[in-house]
Amino acid sequence: MEIRYGIGFWLFGQLQDRFTVYHDARSMEEKFERASKVEGAEGLEVIYPVEFSDENIDEFKSLLKKHGFKVSGMIVDLFTKRKWINGSLSSMDEKIRREAIELSKKALDAAKEVGCETVTLWLGHDGYDYPFQADYLKAWNNLSESVREIASHRGDVKVALEYKLKEPRTHIFIGTVGKALMLAEEVGLRNVGVTMDFGHALYAFENPSESIVLLHRKNRLFHIHFNDNYRDWDHDLIVSSINLWENLEFFYWLRKIDYRGWLSLDIYPYREDPVKMCQRSIENLKILDKLIDKIGMKNLEEAMKTGDSTTITATLMEILK
Amino acid sequence: MEIRYGIGFWLFGQLQDRFTVYHDARSMEEKFERASKVEGAEGLEVIYPVEFSDENIDEFKSLLKKHGFKVSGMIVDLFTKRKWINGSLSSMDEKIRREAIELSKKALDAAKEVGCETVTLWLGHDGYDYPFQADYLKAWNNLSESVREIASHRGDVKVALEYKLKEPRTHIFIGTVGKALMLAEEVGLRNVGVTMDFGHALYAFENPSESIVLLHRKNRLFHIHFNDNYRDWDHDLIVSSINLWENLEFFYWLRKIDYRGWLSLDIYPYREDPVKMCQRSIENLKILDKLIDKIGMKNLEEAMKTGDSTTITATLMEILK
Amino acid sequence: MEIRYGIGFWLFGQLQDRFTVYHDARSMEEKFERASKVEGAEGLEVIYPVEFSDENIDEFKSLLKKHGFKVSGMIVDLFTKRKWINGSLSSMDEKIRREAIELSKKALDAAKEVGCETVTLWLGHDGYDYPFQADYLKAWNNLSESVREIASHRGDVKVALEYKLKEPRTHIFIGTVGKALMLAEEVGLRNVGVTMDFGHALYAFENPSESIVLLHRKNRLFHIHFNDNYRDWDHDLIVSSINLWENLEFFYWLRKIDYRGWLSLDIYPYREDPVKMCQRSIENLKILDKLIDKIGMKNLEEAMKTGDSTTITATLMEILK
Amino acid sequence: MEIRYGIGFWLFGQLQDRFTVYHDARSMEEKFERASKVEGAEGLEVIYPVEFSDENIDEFKSLLKKHGFKVSGMIVDLFTKRKWINGSLSSMDEKIRREAIELSKKALDAAKEVGCETVTLWLGHDGYDYPFQADYLKAWNNLSESVREIASHRGDVKVALEYKLKEPRTHIFIGTVGKALMLAEEVGLRNVGVTMDFGHALYAFENPSESIVLLHRKNRLFHIHFNDNYRDWDHDLIVSSINLWENLEFFYWLRKIDYRGWLSLDIYPYREDPVKMCQRSIENLKILDKLIDKIGMKNLEEAMKTGDSTTITATLMEILK
Repeated sequence: MEIRYGIGFWLFGQLQDRFTVYHDARSMEEKFERASKVEGAEGLEVIYPVEFSDENIDEFKSLLKKHGFKVSGMIVDLFTKRKWINGSLSSMDEKIRREAIELSKKALDAAKEVGCETVTLWLGHDGYDYPFQADYLKAWNNLSESVREIASHRGDVKVALEYKLKEPRTHIFIGTVGKALMLAEEVGLRNVGVTMDFGHALYAFENPSESIVLLHRKNRLFHIHFNDNYRDWDHDLIVSSINLWENLEFFYWLRKIDYRGWLSLDIYPYREDPVKMCQRSIENLKILDKLIDKIGMKNLEEAMKTGDSTTITATLMEILK
Repeated sequence: MEIRYGIGFWLFGQLQDRFTVYHDARSMEEKFERASKVEGAEGLEVIYPVEFSDENIDEFKSLLKKHGFKVSGMIVDLFTKRKWINGSLSSMDEKIRREAIELSKKALDAAKEVGCETVTLWLGHDGYDYPFQADYLKAWNNLSESVREIASHRGDVKVALEYKLKEPRTHIFIGTVGKALMLAEEVGLRNVGVTMDFGHALYAFENPSESIVLLHRKNRLFHIHFNDNYRDWDHDLIVSSINLWENLEFFYWLRKIDYRGWLSLDIYPYREDPVKMCQRSIENLKILDKLIDKIGMKNLEEAMKTGDSTTITATLMEILK
Repeated sequence: MEIRYGIGFWLFGQLQDRFTVYHDARSMEEKFERASKVEGAEGLEVIYPVEFSDENIDEFKSLLKKHGFKVSGMIVDLFTKRKWINGSLSSMDEKIRREAIELSKKALDAAKEVGCETVTLWLGHDGYDYPFQADYLKAWNNLSESVREIASHRGDVKVALEYKLKEPRTHIFIGTVGKALMLAEEVGLRNVGVTMDFGHALYAFENPSESIVLLHRKNRLFHIHFNDNYRDWDHDLIVSSINLWENLEFFYWLRKIDYRGWLSLDIYPYREDPVKMCQRSIENLKILDKLIDKIGMKNLEEAMKTGDSTTITATLMEILK
Repeated sequence: MEIRYGIGFWLFGQLQDRFTVYHDARSMEEKFERASKVEGAEGLEVIYPVEFSDENIDEFKSLLKKHGFKVSGMIVDLFTKRKWINGSLSSMDEKIRREAIELSKKALDAAKEVGCETVTLWLGHDGYDYPFQADYLKAWNNLSESVREIASHRGDVKVALEYKLKEPRTHIFIGTVGKALMLAEEVGLRNVGVTMDFGHALYAFENPSESIVLLHRKNRLFHIHFNDNYRDWDHDLIVSSINLWENLEFFYWLRKIDYRGWLSLDIYPYREDPVKMCQRSIENLKILDKLIDKIGMKNLEEAMKTGDSTTITATLMEILK
């Protein structure tokens, strides 16, 4: 296992929901300043072309260098502009779909330029809110073709599908690990895989460890987002603040599958200071990592082998004595 | 039963979520223009002092008159300003709590002035996101005292607590019909009651009809919000677009308890034209109302008396033949 | 489209939950007697070897003939015996896993003998209840191998994986349409597909129509179970008693994909008379089917093409006028 | 705070669900034998008159004495017999309702006789599965009258309403802390209160600590059931096996409100040895109790006062270092 910690660059800009604006917009430089205060964070995940674009890529690169950050990931902006609200890569409107494809290709090129290995496609508006609203057959065919075309653009950048059950649509097409994996397999290219968000898995009622194992079996685990929630919604809470045991189990499996990549924070500081919330989340991830050593992989493996819940719980609760 | 249809005034202004701005801000006059296009809507529900205030109350009143609208309800703005994000009427910060109380009292006065009978307190930020984050004992004592003080300010305006399980907090104190009713009973004043939101009831896994019956038993059903969802979140969808039967049942009970008041739309047109979405929702409400006549209260009552699900379903499905 | 209605044979025997026994056990003959009272039901779905076995297959066949029933489906009993409670086809205990495989193969042979085209594997105990309880990697490898071996036993009987998110385990491996499809594709045999249960889809927060379209795209939709629920649990309620619109949409898509097969009732008459509950469910299915004609495929298609929720809802609510 | 540990007596008898019988029935004596192996358990909670009745009360008392157990609680059997499946204390059938009342009164008398302070009314069948199935108004009036009559029977035994959102009905009338509290307040007798089940609170999306604080404010917290789940269903898992932080917070509040009473295990050993599962759960409860000392009430209080999630999480995660 070889992990590095990244943070969402957007955490340092404007943050809002339906009711309230919690944090104001900031310049690129200010965002870098704030992000650089998070100790232990080596990477930034950025939304392209919202947070940097071809126009300001030089400024972006020089700020990366100045603050010693890598680009841990990029997300194509197929969700902040009003033109995407009825879908992007699955759109029935061929003009919109083409635009989405071309933007994604440009994102791959930009990724190469800023040294980013993985570009995430999170298609939050590609879905439906009502029965009878979507032509599922055409939509999935479109998705498949679009992803194939994007990933074929260049094989030296990874394309990662980020699944999420809902929000902003009540139903998002790429909603679960199974659907994401099925789509990646259908496209069939080696550089198509999945970004797995711990919280998204939880509120699709997946066990996040099982989800990364399924992706690992097909060599399609490309990237990981971290946060926590109550299994009901994408609350993007501090890592491990709600579900300690599944977070711990996840670190066990990161080792077992020998994960080498980024753990990127996708939390949402509604009422928190973004720097402190990131800092705390990274600290918590490090505590979890060490906790595995403290308990011991062997011990955990033996407890697991029994399959007996009382033995497992005993092993875990022991650390609290 | 004597019902009139109202619409949330905010539906015609800026609408956004975490990701996207779906509709732009508009002037008061523009909002009136658009609202007036919704046939059958007689009332407007407004957020005070965001949508009208003491400064522009004359303009507001003259526009009401011009367009022939009543004020079907008012909601005190204890949620759009950043100062409320850690709580308002339950706040541990006495200064904030006092401010929230005083604003609410002013809202009662303003209500009287614009001929509005009911002021809703929706306390979306009064709650918590994490274990150990709230002092539940102090918070509930504060809530109780605050509501009592506000309602005591004047007995000729009704104060209605709107319960909601979550959003924007992961847990909101006044979350269910039971908690809202308990608080209203504890305060004990005749002008304290509840605003019941159909969708909020659904996603607290309540049957909305049972909820209004519980409120009716204590004479505390003051106001009703309408929308629909998948029982998982406050999606604020078009009325009856998802849960036909529970919507129909609701109209049965509105008659049984002889409800006399407003049915106010609290939908959210993310991807819709607000006028069309309101229009459609009111049409649907009217169809439901007539459907009760079509099936017949007697028929429904007899089916209910059997308690037998096959008989009930037969009665309902009959209308689709 | 060419559909026929089937019913679960177990509905006429003992039915119980954790708390109460609702219906008593009955002989095979009595169960046939009762099932035969359900008008419109042409098929019986049976659990092998619990409801018939090699010992009484002749009696079973003669009763089938007497009552004019086909065997619409068979389910291998990998869930009623205590030996399966820690897993069957995924079991870490090789002896148990082999037993499960052999039983499944025998079920394929028996299916051939009673003229049943599809054998369902519903693996309710193959999953986990606690973090750290399952070795996901070995379990999924086991599942894959087991299914391949079973389906390879004979290519002239279809093997259908029935996915279900939970119950009796808190997490079942084959939990969603995506995971089921992924497994079927991985095994890669033409006679491996999926049994899609309408209610299971709903409470995995899938739209059942989207789910059958996904399966159809890969020629892996083998069988369909019908029932309804509140999206929260497998309540197995009367068809269309809760979610009318998604039921209706489902019939639209059955036509679009030209489904030719069984619609089999998997309801659970806790407090109902099983015959009446089946009868009512079949009536409801027929009403839905006719309703599609009444509204018209064209009309529905045009509404869908707009993607506009107000247009769609108008089209649907029109039928209630 | 003064707590003692109890266990459900039924855990040592037959345990089953819809699919499987997990443990066989046992004699009263055998159940005592097994329960007595759980170290630290001082009380037994029993279902009356299923687990002891007027016929065998002497045997029961002598076994209690022999094994040194108190009766920590009694639950009236208004759920295992088929006659209750359409409701008991809320029943529209006056004969059934009277029977349920009389049985409950007898339970109070029996409680007195076996030295049990609190009798729990858990009304799992008093609810509904379908829209239009219940007359909510009559049902709630019935509930209120029935509980008043039962509690009036004698004031020296406490009557505790156990709320649960669903199962076996899809909707149970007394479903949330708010509804339970409202009913208890309405009845108004000092000996009417609430049995709070940790898992029931969780899957009604309550924070269990907030729930006991609400009950404590009205002097109506009579009894506590312990178990854990995934917030989605009453899985009755090992204490603290899923939600560590909310379990820990609960122990903080038990001290703050100075709880003096039983913590009774209501877990369900589907695949576990009942003795081991109880033992483990009690160990876990004790670890949580000590953990409060280890962190310190002061520390926790100070963290809470900040209301800042990063500070709170830091305080909690510290114990894992």
